[in-house]
Amino acid sequence: MFFDCHSRQLLNCLFSGYRNVNRFHYHRGKSKHLLLSRLFQPMNLREDRVVGVGRSNELTCKSQQLMIQAGLIHPANPGCFYYLPYTVRALEKLIRVIDEEMESIGSQKVNMPSLSTAELWKISERWQVMGKELFRLKDRHGMDYCLSPTHEEAVTHLIASYGSLSYKQLPVMLYQITRKFRDEPKPRFGLLRGREFYMKDMYTFDVSEEAAKETYNIVCESYSRIFDRLGLRFVKVEADTGSIGGKMSHEFQIPANIGEDRILVCLACRFAANVEKMESGGTDCPQCKGKLTETKGIEVGHTFYLGTKYSHVFKASYHNAENKPVTAEMGCFGLGVTRILAASVEILSTEDDIRWPSLLAPYQVCIVPPKRGSKEDVTEGLSESLYNTLVDAAPQLRGEVILDDRSHLTVGKRLKDAKRLGYPYVIIAGKRILEDPPVFEVCCQNVGDTLFLTQEGVVDILRDVQTV
Amino acid sequence: MFFDCHSRQLLNCLFSGYRNVNRFHYHRGKSKHLLLSRLFQPMNLREDRVVGVGRSNELTCKSQQLMIQAGLIHPANPGCFYYLPYTVRALEKLIRVIDEEMESIGSQKVNMPSLSTAELWKISERWQVMGKELFRLKDRHGMDYCLSPTHEEAVTHLIASYGSLSYKQLPVMLYQITRKFRDEPKPRFGLLRGREFYMKDMYTFDVSEEAAKETYNIVCESYSRIFDRLGLRFVKVEADTGSIGGKMSHEFQIPANIGEDRILVCLACRFAANVEKMESGGTDCPQCKGKLTETKGIEVGHTFYLGTKYSHVFKASYHNAENKPVTAEMGCFGLGVTRILAASVEILSTEDDIRWPSLLAPYQVCIVPPKRGSKEDVTEGLSESLYNTLVDAAPQLRGEVILDDRSHLTVGKRLKDAKRLGYPYVIIAGKRILEDPPVFEVCCQNVGDTLFLTQEGVVDILRDVQTV
Repeated sequence: MFFDCHSRQLLNCLFSGYRNVNRFHYHRGKSKHLLLSRLFQPMNLREDRVVGVGRSNELTCKSQQLMIQAGLIHPANPGCFYYLPYTVRALEKLIRVIDEEMESIGSQKVNMPSLSTAELWKISERWQVMGKELFRLKDRHGMDYCLSPTHEEAVTHLIASYGSLSYKQLPVMLYQITRKFRDEPKPRFGLLRGREFYMKDMYTFDVSEEAAKETYNIVCESYSRIFDRLGLRFVKVEADTGSIGGKMSHEFQIPANIGEDRILVCLACRFAANVEKMESGGTDCPQCKGKLTETKGIEVGHTFYLGTKYSHVFKASYHNAENKPVTAEMGCFGLGVTRILAASVEILSTEDDIRWPSLLAPYQVCIVPPKRGSKEDVTEGLSESLYNTLVDAAPQLRGEVILDDRSHLTVGKRLKDAKRLGYPYVIIAGKRILEDPPVFEVCCQNVGDTLFLTQEGVVDILRDVQTV
Repeated sequence: MFFDCHSRQLLNCLFSGYRNVNRFHYHRGKSKHLLLSRLFQPMNLREDRVVGVGRSNELTCKSQQLMIQAGLIHPANPGCFYYLPYTVRALEKLIRVIDEEMESIGSQKVNMPSLSTAELWKISERWQVMGKELFRLKDRHGMDYCLSPTHEEAVTHLIASYGSLSYKQLPVMLYQITRKFRDEPKPRFGLLRGREFYMKDMYTFDVSEEAAKETYNIVCESYSRIFDRLGLRFVKVEADTGSIGGKMSHEFQIPANIGEDRILVCLACRFAANVEKMESGGTDCPQCKGKLTETKGIEVGHTFYLGTKYSHVFKASYHNAENKPVTAEMGCFGLGVTRILAASVEILSTEDDIRWPSLLAPYQVCIVPPKRGSKEDVTEGLSESLYNTLVDAAPQLRGEVILDDRSHLTVGKRLKDAKRLGYPYVIIAGKRILEDPPVFEVCCQNVGDTLFLTQEGVVDILRDVQTV
């Protein structure tokens, strides 16, 4: 017999038993402290155990090698990587920083499909223009699709389908942080140039060129704030518009020797441009005629004032004060999210040790208790007590403190691992833990200081650590 | 000339100018209050303006229609939807609930590529088995790939490549919440059965069948807690293992008339099973011989004890106490993330008005000030003052309170919109706002109550609203 699901009687009878079972919370794996030994954190930190490096023909670089060695990423297909738990934590922190800055300028988050029909891309003529960079596929009915590397077509089609937007509702600023696909001819440098990557892409719709340029500047400023908050030095350079098109474009470049972009900067007037943008190899600054200096950069952001290139063909218009339809003026704005992570590691790390922008470090603090059976081991519980006191005094550190309980290893070995992984603060219960009061050794890795502090002192310097 | 990027001198010179610019925070679009008029929230709430419904041949249902009408989703390709801002907020809240529960059982979050090589799927023989459900494509070099609908192959390959895991490190419990792809023959019911969707998939590795079954139970309990926290009634039923394979399987079903699964339940002993699982159409309970009742369900979770089906062919092993390699015992565990959202809307909503699980509502509170020029309009500022007092007294509501500043519309019209969108609390500055002290009308939509309260009273009942 068939039963109507919405009958209260059956539901109550059915579910009453389950309720009790569900309230039973199992605590296996639940510890008061985050224990390093319980993490899947495949540290290939000894060279004889490194897997996955140099196994393919891809060009490699420092960040890729360090991230593979430290178990942060693992190679899958060419240009595709597994992001392991530490990387996911850093990635989610970066996304929160971006979300905060986007919210502060009134932008809203959406999420558009990866599969995009050929029809949509033929309207913009990019079905041809994009060539082999576009991953193409057919569905079971033989319809043509691509995996979107960017979403100008999709978002403009969306806005066009709401034909009734009023000028009062503009600017509309929509962004998403999603996985993008690009069939790179030569994927290389780990997360710097992959075939699957996370990008933040934003699209803006304005009433006029003037309003669109104001929006453009506001977004560029929010990008600057993001890099400032991460402590990453960058140059904003005039850039070519490439296959995206449009009337004006800037790149946000992080200077780095591994960078694939060549940028020219003028030390006199701070003019900066991508070499691609400069005409006929000039070495003089077009603004002040000073000498241009060339450097290399990693492109981590790219902004475009598009004009009506897409809104015209997709008929994305708004109604003006006279209730007449007018084609919207658009901008689009990209941030290479996984690329920012890798670029950070690339420029901040030493040859052997990963360093993160403080806000993005997967965990802020690693506490290293004494080796089991050592002289200092008599101080049992001091590290755990510090852990508890710390997260009580600085609640923003909840979930950010990890205890390296692999106490069969020496403090020195664990300190070496901690340096490799780049926790901003490593707190060691070393020799001076036997003093009265006990003294911890605190390695402030991002500033390069080592301090000797009582528990009170440790709490004092960590109380105001910023997290996101 | 070529310049070494790491020269401090150049960098300092280059960047000193940018720093000042970046500290200039532009405040356009930044309001002390979240204003409904500033949101891209395309409310197609009048039938004559509804776009996108019924435009294709897809089967539809209540949640799909309501979500399109309220501007929460918008159809793209068959089985693919734009998720608009309110949906993204609900989705991110659901992800946080899942993250919390996964963390509480010691599971860690990873992120695996969408592109998966044919080689990997041929090892498990699913390259053939999956047939047309698998989206397949070739890269520019002619290599075969698929878009992963699930990641048993990928994760088992990952674990196998770390050949040196010790039995002490098990269980390993890895999960991800990512976009998945399935070429459904007939996409239908909006987010309930799409071709692109978000799934939480988890994979566990254990030392023995006994340990794997213990892990299986722990994960099932965490799934029950998730549905309990959302207030969603569910049935856990014995299920067929299908193309995933394995030795034991359960589905988490939400009873709903639109459900595509037929489930049999015994009211006497609470036995429950998918019809697919039952042999030869029996109507007697196999446990107590009682009568089975049939109902329909939406499958929102599916758990599998896999045994060594994948770990055997991929050689995913661990080293036991005698340092001998042993094949790991696996489990896999899925939750349909976007499907849970849609199923919630499907079963909680009325015919006209969306209702959310309280924790997942895109915004918790909507405040409706008087119509401009109305008798009540003399109380200007009372709604804003309530807004401020509320987020001060209940900091968890920051970002959760929205002011419907479209004050050219009547209170009644805006209340109707608010009911459609399903804010758990709608606070109206109605006629009684003129009393001394002023009295607000509070519609508690999830419980169906309307209360009349002073500002103090409003704060009292909202102080403890749970958010995630």
